[in-house]
Amino acid sequence: MKFAFTITHKHGTARAGEMVTTHGVVKTPVYMPVGTIGTVKALSSEDVIQTGAQIILGNTYHLHLRPGEALVKKLGGLHQFMNWPKPILTDSGGFQVFSLGQEAGKLSKIDEDGVTFKSHLDGSIHRLTPESSIQIQRALGADIIMAFDECTPIKDEVYVVQAMERTHRWLKRSQEEWQRGIHDQALFGIIQGGDYKHLRQESAAFVNSQDLPGIAIGGVSVGYFMEKTVEHINWVKAIIDPTKPFYTMGVGRDPQDIVDVVMAGVDMFDCVAPTRLARNGAIYHGYLEGSSFDHTSPDRVRFVSEFNRKGRLQIGNAQFRDDNRPIMEECDCATCRAGYSRAYLNHLFKSDELLYYRLSSIHNVRFMVRLCEQLREKIISH
Amino acid sequence: MKFAFTITHKHGTARAGEMVTTHGVVKTPVYMPVGTIGTVKALSSEDVIQTGAQIILGNTYHLHLRPGEALVKKLGGLHQFMNWPKPILTDSGGFQVFSLGQEAGKLSKIDEDGVTFKSHLDGSIHRLTPESSIQIQRALGADIIMAFDECTPIKDEVYVVQAMERTHRWLKRSQEEWQRGIHDQALFGIIQGGDYKHLRQESAAFVNSQDLPGIAIGGVSVGYFMEKTVEHINWVKAIIDPTKPFYTMGVGRDPQDIVDVVMAGVDMFDCVAPTRLARNGAIYHGYLEGSSFDHTSPDRVRFVSEFNRKGRLQIGNAQFRDDNRPIMEECDCATCRAGYSRAYLNHLFKSDELLYYRLSSIHNVRFMVRLCEQLREKIISH
Repeated sequence: MKFAFTITHKHGTARAGEMVTTHGVVKTPVYMPVGTIGTVKALSSEDVIQTGAQIILGNTYHLHLRPGEALVKKLGGLHQFMNWPKPILTDSGGFQVFSLGQEAGKLSKIDEDGVTFKSHLDGSIHRLTPESSIQIQRALGADIIMAFDECTPIKDEVYVVQAMERTHRWLKRSQEEWQRGIHDQALFGIIQGGDYKHLRQESAAFVNSQDLPGIAIGGVSVGYFMEKTVEHINWVKAIIDPTKPFYTMGVGRDPQDIVDVVMAGVDMFDCVAPTRLARNGAIYHGYLEGSSFDHTSPDRVRFVSEFNRKGRLQIGNAQFRDDNRPIMEECDCATCRAGYSRAYLNHLFKSDELLYYRLSSIHNVRFMVRLCEQLREKIISH
Repeated sequence: MKFAFTITHKHGTARAGEMVTTHGVVKTPVYMPVGTIGTVKALSSEDVIQTGAQIILGNTYHLHLRPGEALVKKLGGLHQFMNWPKPILTDSGGFQVFSLGQEAGKLSKIDEDGVTFKSHLDGSIHRLTPESSIQIQRALGADIIMAFDECTPIKDEVYVVQAMERTHRWLKRSQEEWQRGIHDQALFGIIQGGDYKHLRQESAAFVNSQDLPGIAIGGVSVGYFMEKTVEHINWVKAIIDPTKPFYTMGVGRDPQDIVDVVMAGVDMFDCVAPTRLARNGAIYHGYLEGSSFDHTSPDRVRFVSEFNRKGRLQIGNAQFRDDNRPIMEECDCATCRAGYSRAYLNHLFKSDELLYYRLSSIHNVRFMVRLCEQLREKIISH
């Protein structure tokens, strides 16, 4: 297994580091765009590289259903299949199958051994277990793979305990499957425990004790509710090995979210929101201010925008109809640099033209990647 | 008006030339991709330039309805609006309003002065006349503009005569409007006359007598029915000024169609099919053979393909599911050069992923552009 992580700089609890993988070095903190089904939606591999993205995430659930891991493996693995030469992280499929479970008709069902679920594509029945999740991820060939976990709800302590304990048993099974044969991928474990401090800490201690290459924190609360996310990170960070990469799953919807988790000591995060928001007409706009990573400092690093707290402009709004400026004057994304105007993007968006999705996604992904580059620079230069 | 056309080489009736416009030189024969509503669907301006396309077509009907010529003019004209630095040709809107007239509910109505039509977007009532078509095209700012004509049906001689004569009167009115104020765009007239030799020849003589910068041939038969298209070209080509650029409207669906019209002496053609076919899973594959532009020669230039007469593979077919090769080994389009495989395109197409539309459109446009480059080379090197 080619995997190493080195923290090169610290500023408060924020960290800058370098992660070495089979497909290259990743400088942290790092935002990982999501390439659900072998493509970061609307973008080519060249586009994603041009945004400066260093690593992308692939979804085991989606790739298992279509085109299937056997085909991907036959064609040389996910890197070759999607023509992406840099590192890839795959999730375990857990998040998607449990999301399905919460939808009408209960599309998934959990037992001690694993999860049975219906495909959202054709209703066919599938099953994921810790073993099969790892086998699928091995066939896909990502650089970093995730243990099969249950994306636990926030409340209902009795259930959260059950789910956490099952997740811990599944982590051991994931790890055993990973250790069978060649294990040239880096396996990360996932801390669960809902909204309960003692459970999060118990889970952190357990995951930490497995001595895996990396540690993640997940669950329904993480990413969706940023105050809780930061609180959960703070509960566990003294417990986990500080030399390991720490990954917050599903974080990166609002630019400030990235500032928050980096300030709390997180190294990696992924989120579909930047591309999904772009497709829905919400385009990032704003800047970092401040230089301190102490969140109580008046000069603390923070995101500011002339548009709204979330730093998004709605490109479909009438105010942009005749606005000849690029999305952001100072932006170095390919869309802004090429000179595409807000007026043109407004026209493409309202006309539902395919080009719109690409141009806006390029901007939003570059925006989040650049934010990480700037945070890293602030950590290093302090 | 900056416009000049020089035929530099001939081979049989096939010609190679150079057309000078305000936005640069166009080497002919030339395929013009269609950028309906200010975008060649799924492609950015950079993508289109990378295909080698030298000039694109914009649709007056679509741009008039959305975003409207007043806005485009305010924002600096169509070139600046869509970030396209090279030449543009706009059609007159005639084709679209008459197509609407043939649809259920009769969305358009012709009178001597012009055409009243309902918007396909919102049912609102609009009107185009020769004068307003030229005014819209002036506001859009294309390098080449088209006279307002009626896209005449193939049969019904009585009607075809009426429509042709009205088109001739509209040509004079288009020309008068064009000559008012600054006329820095090149106006082309359009030959109509349906499937009637004497009418096509009468129309050709009339259009030729107006001494415009260029001459086009249109009508329902042109482009859709290639045998008729070539026949119609042959009927008129001795009548029209051989020093003028000759443009066949709507030609370029099948690769052989381009060979046919170039062999018949055409310099310019446009077609939405290459991008539309791509989006529907039909991808060009094949080569030119032969070197003679005499269509009776056994060594005549012709298009051949291992797939079918039309030279298309259906990327959604199961045979491509595990095919790791690029669409065409020898293809120099950005999609094939980057290494995207048939299997990956099959997966993206079946998953309805946005990236599919762009990758396939890049290939199909480059394919048609390259075909023209190769035909030009054959004409020149003979």
